[in-house]
Amino acid sequence: MSRMSFSCDYLEGALPEILKRMEETSMEQVPGYGFDPVSESAKDKIRKACETPKADIYFLIGGTQTNAVVIDGFLHRYEGVIAAGTGHVALHEAGAIEYCGHKVLTIPGSFDKLSAAEVEHYMENFLGDENHEHMVQPGIVYISQPTEYGSVYHKDELEALHETCQKYGLPLYIDGARLADALAAEDNDVSLPLLAHSCEAFYIGGTKCGAYIGEAVVFPHHDTIPHFFTLIKEHGALLAKGRLTGIQFDTLFTDDLYFKAGKHAVDEANRIRAVLKECGYTFDLENTTNQIFIVLENEKYKKISEEVELAFWEKKDDTHTVVRIATSWATKPENTDRLCAILRQYR
Amino acid sequence: MSRMSFSCDYLEGALPEILKRMEETSMEQVPGYGFDPVSESAKDKIRKACETPKADIYFLIGGTQTNAVVIDGFLHRYEGVIAAGTGHVALHEAGAIEYCGHKVLTIPGSFDKLSAAEVEHYMENFLGDENHEHMVQPGIVYISQPTEYGSVYHKDELEALHETCQKYGLPLYIDGARLADALAAEDNDVSLPLLAHSCEAFYIGGTKCGAYIGEAVVFPHHDTIPHFFTLIKEHGALLAKGRLTGIQFDTLFTDDLYFKAGKHAVDEANRIRAVLKECGYTFDLENTTNQIFIVLENEKYKKISEEVELAFWEKKDDTHTVVRIATSWATKPENTDRLCAILRQYR
Amino acid sequence: MSRMSFSCDYLEGALPEILKRMEETSMEQVPGYGFDPVSESAKDKIRKACETPKADIYFLIGGTQTNAVVIDGFLHRYEGVIAAGTGHVALHEAGAIEYCGHKVLTIPGSFDKLSAAEVEHYMENFLGDENHEHMVQPGIVYISQPTEYGSVYHKDELEALHETCQKYGLPLYIDGARLADALAAEDNDVSLPLLAHSCEAFYIGGTKCGAYIGEAVVFPHHDTIPHFFTLIKEHGALLAKGRLTGIQFDTLFTDDLYFKAGKHAVDEANRIRAVLKECGYTFDLENTTNQIFIVLENEKYKKISEEVELAFWEKKDDTHTVVRIATSWATKPENTDRLCAILRQYR
Amino acid sequence: MSRMSFSCDYLEGALPEILKRMEETSMEQVPGYGFDPVSESAKDKIRKACETPKADIYFLIGGTQTNAVVIDGFLHRYEGVIAAGTGHVALHEAGAIEYCGHKVLTIPGSFDKLSAAEVEHYMENFLGDENHEHMVQPGIVYISQPTEYGSVYHKDELEALHETCQKYGLPLYIDGARLADALAAEDNDVSLPLLAHSCEAFYIGGTKCGAYIGEAVVFPHHDTIPHFFTLIKEHGALLAKGRLTGIQFDTLFTDDLYFKAGKHAVDEANRIRAVLKECGYTFDLENTTNQIFIVLENEKYKKISEEVELAFWEKKDDTHTVVRIATSWATKPENTDRLCAILRQYR
Repeated sequence: MSRMSFSCDYLEGALPEILKRMEETSMEQVPGYGFDPVSESAKDKIRKACETPKADIYFLIGGTQTNAVVIDGFLHRYEGVIAAGTGHVALHEAGAIEYCGHKVLTIPGSFDKLSAAEVEHYMENFLGDENHEHMVQPGIVYISQPTEYGSVYHKDELEALHETCQKYGLPLYIDGARLADALAAEDNDVSLPLLAHSCEAFYIGGTKCGAYIGEAVVFPHHDTIPHFFTLIKEHGALLAKGRLTGIQFDTLFTDDLYFKAGKHAVDEANRIRAVLKECGYTFDLENTTNQIFIVLENEKYKKISEEVELAFWEKKDDTHTVVRIATSWATKPENTDRLCAILRQYR
Repeated sequence: MSRMSFSCDYLEGALPEILKRMEETSMEQVPGYGFDPVSESAKDKIRKACETPKADIYFLIGGTQTNAVVIDGFLHRYEGVIAAGTGHVALHEAGAIEYCGHKVLTIPGSFDKLSAAEVEHYMENFLGDENHEHMVQPGIVYISQPTEYGSVYHKDELEALHETCQKYGLPLYIDGARLADALAAEDNDVSLPLLAHSCEAFYIGGTKCGAYIGEAVVFPHHDTIPHFFTLIKEHGALLAKGRLTGIQFDTLFTDDLYFKAGKHAVDEANRIRAVLKECGYTFDLENTTNQIFIVLENEKYKKISEEVELAFWEKKDDTHTVVRIATSWATKPENTDRLCAILRQYR
Repeated sequence: MSRMSFSCDYLEGALPEILKRMEETSMEQVPGYGFDPVSESAKDKIRKACETPKADIYFLIGGTQTNAVVIDGFLHRYEGVIAAGTGHVALHEAGAIEYCGHKVLTIPGSFDKLSAAEVEHYMENFLGDENHEHMVQPGIVYISQPTEYGSVYHKDELEALHETCQKYGLPLYIDGARLADALAAEDNDVSLPLLAHSCEAFYIGGTKCGAYIGEAVVFPHHDTIPHFFTLIKEHGALLAKGRLTGIQFDTLFTDDLYFKAGKHAVDEANRIRAVLKECGYTFDLENTTNQIFIVLENEKYKKISEEVELAFWEKKDDTHTVVRIATSWATKPENTDRLCAILRQYR
Repeated sequence: MSRMSFSCDYLEGALPEILKRMEETSMEQVPGYGFDPVSESAKDKIRKACETPKADIYFLIGGTQTNAVVIDGFLHRYEGVIAAGTGHVALHEAGAIEYCGHKVLTIPGSFDKLSAAEVEHYMENFLGDENHEHMVQPGIVYISQPTEYGSVYHKDELEALHETCQKYGLPLYIDGARLADALAAEDNDVSLPLLAHSCEAFYIGGTKCGAYIGEAVVFPHHDTIPHFFTLIKEHGALLAKGRLTGIQFDTLFTDDLYFKAGKHAVDEANRIRAVLKECGYTFDLENTTNQIFIVLENEKYKKISEEVELAFWEKKDDTHTVVRIATSWATKPENTDRLCAILRQYR
């Protein structure tokens, strides 16, 4: 790949600190399946960072897998998962949720963030339908922080949503594939401990935030899902050499590396954002995290693409395209400079 | 872990050559999901090693996952997988096959290797049962090379089994979690190309043979299972940073590292085996790969365990235990020496 | 139930001819699972009526079950079923399709009938999406004749849809829960043979058209789904005393009883329809089969309901309700008279 | 079928009392899905017969379906069902249990009845296995009363088994496909109320005991499985015209018809049994219900089969066959006389 790329946030490998520790510890003999000392240490550090001393923590491998295992763990066979129409589980996971036998119940008209009011309305409608025992029972609510469009839920939104979920007996599960980016957003007021206290489960994304692979599932309350270990195994999601994810999270939660990884990504995105605004580019949707969605004329998109790889997101209309620019922990500042120059040039 | 351990073959991390390449390439920007150049290169090297220029190759993460995805890919909903009663899919995968909706059809009385005659007998019985349309249809045959007990199928056994499978229209799938160890066995006459020509799918195990994670699924014939990529995703088994498995297999298939890894493990096992024979230890089952199963008096087992960790396999009777000794690519010769000395001491 | 009811079309038991034959044949000893002579005779009669001499025919028990078994039979694990947003499989089957592991791919904005253009647009969008291998693969198209809203597909619509399906390699499956009613509609130009030649599978609904239970699945081409019998059993859908559905369909396809049952229902509905029009009632949606959807002021709905049971369909707005009136093979003409009088009274 | 048949117990339709009521009530308009007055009445009668005033009762359609829905309802995703190797769920249900994602955990060596000791031994072994979190968790115990071989569990056996199940937190589920026959057995000491108090769920078989279709699931304790109605629907097992099963069970539990049906079957079987003993026939297994298993020389079996249809059960050896003789509520005494004469003739 000769052109530099801002097309996505998992183009590079892992933080050097992680690779170094993998090398240093490689010949140590440790037990498998996540019971090694480093994995235990990583869990402790996460418990501290979340201020949830009794949390159960499991390391899984990727987002789709994590969503499938956790959601399946929460649901009874006759239940489905409520999500926004734009939710990752609804669109881009190849039916991994349905594969487990559960319907994704998308709230009609919902887009990006899911509000307490939308869930309330959905549930009232459902319960008010005489035939609701003939329908899939809503069993959990799924959101992502930040969303698939890079938006962050604020404290009041999250707490209202959680309250509504509790009213209907629905656990709230938060997909944190890019959680480091939400935590670093200027307008963010949802800390890790607050997040942990506002849901029944969430995961701290590693793959997109400095790790090679790995997502840390956090159940703030002990034994939320009995036999979750067996469920992981049954899903084919259990890592023999669990140390691999353990090392990564232990490193990420040392010296605030995880938070720094997010901050770097968002800082670089903010520099790009400023140039885009200055030059009058059109944003498809405004957000404050590491992904930027702009609308480009097709011709201009084509020309810019000759110098830097951006991501096609969707057709806006016949002459315009929605394009995604993504930064990450690995974005080189000099590349951001070059991208800014290009954007200025094609303003 | 202060004591040295011979309890299993995935106690260590990965070959230094792999870690070195992970570090060297970490900041390169490459596409995800296994479409990066290194993954492509790894696939080519495997195709050459197998002498199957048209093979489709996919990198998955662990054995249980790989078995579930491949077997599910071959089977229709009404079909099950034939396996020995001791097959890994039948016992120790937490029902991952059943989770996909498929029954594991264990052949009664079968143990360790599955013979052509056993499959023939099973199929004749099945087809001869008037009610067989009321039963799960056999849809694939599963074996492992080497077996869960470290035995290797020989050329004539494998070819006879494959012929029988073809007679009944059953694809043959070979679990190669420890394939490097089978390839290095003194009595082995099944080369990689022969293996590839004697089945419809197999996997080359990485996790237990030098890699951190990763199993390479090989379909000798192109497009054996349509949309296998989507199936991988649906199972939650798709790696975003596919380069991680690509790098490992590209390295393993450079300079014969994979074969050397197996040879080292088997050589060390053979040294231990020789001492065990010399000292008159009882073997529970004789084999020629990297796992050794011996019967120890409980008292002796307890004492030996104070100095070296071996694996409890199963109770033999009230006063004896079956114990597993496993070597790997990472076994240090000096540790083998120490183990041999201990075994001599407790003869 | 003291009030007469027009709330749905399965309030009564079965045609007297059916009950008579059940009684006459009850003590005959016949084989189970649908292999009895009467079931065979019923299949032959249906083959004749459809002009598909090689069709495979199976008798199942209810609509949700039939849809699940047939759709599951057609689909690979990574595939889903395209349906209108108002399709029965999408809403009111408690996730029976997802339970089999398949996503229902509702076409956004689709309502009632699904057009060839909508399917074409959906498929072009899907195939044009770079990420479509990460998504559920469309594997079949589901429609119902008549639709959930009582509309009938006309010859040109059906043929265009089938052609589009074939272009994309998608089987077309038609839910005929109320097929007798479509066949009897004044504007219907789709005969049973035409229907059979325009799809890969359909079912002839019995439960809502004169039978106690039973739906006849027709695969116009022999062996469309191998081992379909085993699949039925696996779904728990195999009837030990298959004669029960056999007798019903054999009777329904004797002396055109099935067609007469539909004609009676539609004739009665047309009488009601005429009165509704004459009295200026508002139709929510116009159709020509046995279900009528009108919009009533809440007050009026309440009053009418004191004299006759109609079905609440959905809220139209705060002061109006969509109400369903359904007739069936069992609707007594004197009850239709009474209903017409009531409707006139409350005009 | 010109020859009389004793091959199985579901060769005929239904008791005349049932057919009569179906006819009498056919034109009554009643609500669907089992909420009609007759279904409610049937449930009350069953509650009384079981002396379980708070029991939840559901009518399903056949044995395989009932087993799949109930077992699936009890189990979490990571759990399987313990059964004897000869259990119906283990062999002849086309993988319906695995289709729901659950493994059937057959106890090695178990045959016919499952003893408390066998379950205890299995559980102790399981819990004693260090790797048991990598294995399917036992979640329920399945037995049938009478067994697939016609044996009945006695009071002490059943109570011991239930106690053992409770010790390990395992619900006990009893398949009563031929329960009427067990209740009528001479050596039976397990009444309906005792049965209901010794398990967490059971079903009262209709299909093989006088009904056309229908099995009544009884949960002695209210709300044992939440949303069981939705689960039934999701499995495609919900009958639109629930009255059909309601009428049958209401009739069966009027004037003790169910008990009389079983008694008739067992009485006729006992007459045959007496002749077989008198003539020195060899029993493959002795039991006291409506199925008789004898061993015949192949030649003799062939000759007898020319006059009466019996069921091939399995090959005993090269010259002998195990043959099943089954009676039912519908067995005509004159046919029993003829069979006895034939058996005497070929003694």
